[in-house]
Amino acid sequence: MNLILLDDSDGPVSGEVTISDARAAHLLNILKVTPGQAVRVGVLDGPLGVGTVQSTDDGRVTVRCVFDAADTPARPRVDLLLALPRPKVMRRLWAQLAALGVGHIILTNAERVERHYFDTHVLSEACYRPLLIEGLQQARDTRLPSVSIYRQFKVLVEDHLDTLFSEGVRLVADPRGTMSVASAIGGDTDQRVLIAIGPEGGWNAFELALLQAHGFRHVSLGPRALRVDTACIALLTIVHASMQKR
Amino acid sequence: MNLILLDDSDGPVSGEVTISDARAAHLLNILKVTPGQAVRVGVLDGPLGVGTVQSTDDGRVTVRCVFDAADTPARPRVDLLLALPRPKVMRRLWAQLAALGVGHIILTNAERVERHYFDTHVLSEACYRPLLIEGLQQARDTRLPSVSIYRQFKVLVEDHLDTLFSEGVRLVADPRGTMSVASAIGGDTDQRVLIAIGPEGGWNAFELALLQAHGFRHVSLGPRALRVDTACIALLTIVHASMQKR
Repeated sequence: MNLILLDDSDGPVSGEVTISDARAAHLLNILKVTPGQAVRVGVLDGPLGVGTVQSTDDGRVTVRCVFDAADTPARPRVDLLLALPRPKVMRRLWAQLAALGVGHIILTNAERVERHYFDTHVLSEACYRPLLIEGLQQARDTRLPSVSIYRQFKVLVEDHLDTLFSEGVRLVADPRGTMSVASAIGGDTDQRVLIAIGPEGGWNAFELALLQAHGFRHVSLGPRALRVDTACIALLTIVHASMQKR
Repeated sequence: MNLILLDDSDGPVSGEVTISDARAAHLLNILKVTPGQAVRVGVLDGPLGVGTVQSTDDGRVTVRCVFDAADTPARPRVDLLLALPRPKVMRRLWAQLAALGVGHIILTNAERVERHYFDTHVLSEACYRPLLIEGLQQARDTRLPSVSIYRQFKVLVEDHLDTLFSEGVRLVADPRGTMSVASAIGGDTDQRVLIAIGPEGGWNAFELALLQAHGFRHVSLGPRALRVDTACIALLTIVHASMQKR
């Protein structure tokens, strides 16, 4: 936890804020803060700032916070369209995706996605929101990724995608692709990038063709076939690195 | 499992081989192979080839294998020096490291590594070897990473590192670094690269200085602080991508 994120449930965030949950436990037990000490704070979807510990008492920590509106992280310019992995994998991914930096996470179906994956509580906001916040606190970001879930792949791509992702570069990871991510993004680092990652076993031919018909360019990470969770981290890393080059 | 890897315990690998373990279960239950069908096979630390299913019987599969010595994957040119993460994380990393491609994995101590991490069975070859092989089978590679464990960081860096990694580019990941991995590797994509990744919380000043004194250049992945397992995947991906550029 490299940042203490505050949100509406903490009350007004300027001035003094008292916290008493896992964030307080981290401050007390890991960072072992004492009054007067400064800690990194942030407002969910808002600015970063500095908190000065005022008091620690019975598992609670009171912090006086000062924020600088100019120090508000930009929303990550990378979005992810992901064929829903199995629940155990998806649970592990939430925090990692938020830490790597994703603007919008769009989960969808595919032939090789088991239908029952959609019934898991891992897709409930009550489950994923704390995990996303955990990732933001790790990466010192305040921008909570938005999450959309579409059980019908064709309906998503044909009817909703142009609204969800209106402008930018669309990429689909495909081991048979020959273009690198950097080449596909080119020098255009101001655009948003949407990267589509298929299920274990890959998209089927219909799904790949539909994505291609909707402007997705095939990119490859190289000849090694990766597990979906490894591929997500690898591709998001490469997309971010490609967008930083000028 | 995108490849069935055979090793000494399977007997002579040319001609017919009968397997009866998790590999056989995968062929029978997931790929649902039938006699005559071709499957990808490989010899551990040897060539890739094609296996033709001869018979399936009571949980066993007999495959006639043909290998092409010319089709032997090169040893990955990236090595990893990793401050030992906690056992749960290390257990998850083994397969992912092998899938991403690592020649040599060197595990060591650091101030911020808990001493008891070294007592885990996750560091026994009996535990990690099957996990590394799982990663190779995922990525269709045959090159088993070698593993070295040094409980004393200073002794490793001062006395053993020049033998373990005699020639090539040495990098250490440091959030305060300003150089990108691609710049640090430059155009020299034929050299081996060793990337050092610290514990949660980072290397301390002494450790960073010792690494720097032994030729490690500081590289950064950007301003986001990542968990060690995410950082390993991200950095290995970036190093491989930087080495592929010519």
